[in-house]
Amino acid sequence: MEEIFARRMQHVRASEIREILKVTERPDFISLAGGLPAPELFPVTEIAEAARRCFAEDGAAALQYSTTEGYAPLRAAIARRLPETTGARPGADEILITTGSQQGLDLVGKVFLDEGDVVLCESPTYLGGLQAFRVFGPRFVEVETDDEGMIPASLERCLEAEPRAKLLYAIPDFQNPAGRTWSLARREAVLAIVERHRMAVIEDCPYGELRFSGSPLPSLMALAGPGQVLQLGTFSKILCPGLRVAWIAANRAMIEKLVLVKQAADLHSPSLNQRLVSRLLETYDLAAGIERMRDLYRRRCGAMLAALEGEFPEGATWTRPEGGLFVWVTLPEGVSARDLLTRAIGVQVAFVPGGAFFPNGGHENTLRLNFSIMTPERIAEGVRRLGALLVPAPL
Amino acid sequence: MEEIFARRMQHVRASEIREILKVTERPDFISLAGGLPAPELFPVTEIAEAARRCFAEDGAAALQYSTTEGYAPLRAAIARRLPETTGARPGADEILITTGSQQGLDLVGKVFLDEGDVVLCESPTYLGGLQAFRVFGPRFVEVETDDEGMIPASLERCLEAEPRAKLLYAIPDFQNPAGRTWSLARREAVLAIVERHRMAVIEDCPYGELRFSGSPLPSLMALAGPGQVLQLGTFSKILCPGLRVAWIAANRAMIEKLVLVKQAADLHSPSLNQRLVSRLLETYDLAAGIERMRDLYRRRCGAMLAALEGEFPEGATWTRPEGGLFVWVTLPEGVSARDLLTRAIGVQVAFVPGGAFFPNGGHENTLRLNFSIMTPERIAEGVRRLGALLVPAPL
Repeated sequence: MEEIFARRMQHVRASEIREILKVTERPDFISLAGGLPAPELFPVTEIAEAARRCFAEDGAAALQYSTTEGYAPLRAAIARRLPETTGARPGADEILITTGSQQGLDLVGKVFLDEGDVVLCESPTYLGGLQAFRVFGPRFVEVETDDEGMIPASLERCLEAEPRAKLLYAIPDFQNPAGRTWSLARREAVLAIVERHRMAVIEDCPYGELRFSGSPLPSLMALAGPGQVLQLGTFSKILCPGLRVAWIAANRAMIEKLVLVKQAADLHSPSLNQRLVSRLLETYDLAAGIERMRDLYRRRCGAMLAALEGEFPEGATWTRPEGGLFVWVTLPEGVSARDLLTRAIGVQVAFVPGGAFFPNGGHENTLRLNFSIMTPERIAEGVRRLGALLVPAPL
Repeated sequence: MEEIFARRMQHVRASEIREILKVTERPDFISLAGGLPAPELFPVTEIAEAARRCFAEDGAAALQYSTTEGYAPLRAAIARRLPETTGARPGADEILITTGSQQGLDLVGKVFLDEGDVVLCESPTYLGGLQAFRVFGPRFVEVETDDEGMIPASLERCLEAEPRAKLLYAIPDFQNPAGRTWSLARREAVLAIVERHRMAVIEDCPYGELRFSGSPLPSLMALAGPGQVLQLGTFSKILCPGLRVAWIAANRAMIEKLVLVKQAADLHSPSLNQRLVSRLLETYDLAAGIERMRDLYRRRCGAMLAALEGEFPEGATWTRPEGGLFVWVTLPEGVSARDLLTRAIGVQVAFVPGGAFFPNGGHENTLRLNFSIMTPERIAEGVRRLGALLVPAPL
């Protein structure tokens, strides 16, 4: 039956790692593998109350078909929040509601990418972004990245080699997987290079509000000229992911195209969920909820960094995130994180080997560790077990 | 900026009709244009109660990330219902939950269609299906259709001309837009032809349970050999559309491919909505709710057919649906339904001109009338006004 499928299915393949990680969902595992926000901070009672009010006040309208663009009061509320949170200033008609930011990436792929088009991305970059874009058959060109973000000289070289690159895909705040944040100077330098080219910047901002140290920086969209940046935002990490309410901010011309492909993709995001979040924003103190998340993640990240310091051998290095959910570890050249995972599963610990985050392969000595879902004690124990696997046992 | 967009955006265009119809959403309009289910039959109280129980009993789990395949108890419940409703007998692991059936169509397009691949479809066919598939650049070949469904001899001719056709897209029950139902003989004849070819049948079944006269027929999936048919089903028309909970039933090999593209499209459908529908199926008498819909739509369809009989001029013909939401009218050759719409808007009546439902154009003398959303009185008045526009005024 293989030949009946579209050619794209050759590069849309099941992740071997994902299969391996299925066994690690058992509760006796210490999972540093996923990217789940801490459920103990979901405001379940407040969300239940917002749902109750949707049904009581909106009735059947909350359950009927609605417009592709999204629920107007929610679009307006998001537009009102953005100047504070990312510094961007879109109008309400420059916001499109999406079914999670993952759908935003799919819609972007549909609107921009022909087979063979070049997408410039950080090295490493978000696996879900690669998966969404891969459906449309682009080539990924990795721009070198350090602790301050994308390296401008590397971007220049990439653009010399690929002057017709279509998209630059960037996660400037507490990046998944590396946990790094771009400095202001790098944001400005990258935008200065990009504005000389006919290309769009896709700024993926799921974690921006989860800063637990350092000072907030303006987003690329806030710094860029009009129409250069499309910014993806979501309630998944600051509220909860299970409602799948997210958005794209972009200029009108882009939004019009995105609406066309969104209509073909799922008609609209669920009416109930949009009205529920809209109501919640009126009554619930979201800023205070985010503050509680920052406190929790600061402690958990601290526990992970302390454990790495104490337990990981000489030669391993790691990032020190100022927010978000992830720490990125580089093991000495030649050590395989995939092999380490196989052994880690034997001691009930899971993480994600870093190779999958590089679209063109390599970097098998890297790994991503998540600190948002486990307690500090479990994190410390998980890192200790990993460290023990890395240190050769004494004879 | 045009050239930065993907080539596919040349054939993914805003519908001129959709723009025109925006003015008709005002409450003073008699809209026979949409495809909305009657909201007065949405079980708002029962859905609110199911939501309350989700939050009380599942807590944060209803708001956390979940699996791409869908909520296991919901998949099992759908698998249990299908033998009664469509005669298909998939296992729970042969059900993938989708964000509306529109997403099902998008996923099918992704998994099967390369640019230039041939999709065979009814003539006319569902506009949303055309929109979903068009993103992947296929050629549509229209199979002739009459009151008994797709005409086997026409299908044979199409397959002689296009032996490598990839998909056959079919809506056998109360089709959108034509309101027609395939006879059992036609279902069997079409499947007998298709099984000699290496192609998949996409059976779109949003309306199958909304039969208000005649006897139920087995679905194509129930009649076909294993793996030949993918069947799309949804709660949108039998419960409510605003939750966006739908499914694809297909064999394991197909589901595996669909899961991969679903993961890239939106990770998963909203956790809350899936749990809510799953709970509702345990406590709410869905069969009784559907029976109320059938009664309502039977009366409304009857009002429309009686009004057409009384008000439309000689030379116009129309279908007599046994279920679903739509009647299809063919005006005399040379009469333009688009022109009629312009004049109808002047008398506060809206409908959808039929031309858009033919992927290769023509048939401008056809129109789709919806009877699910307006009262019998409003339907009769709307048809009367349309009829008056069609009959030349006496001198």
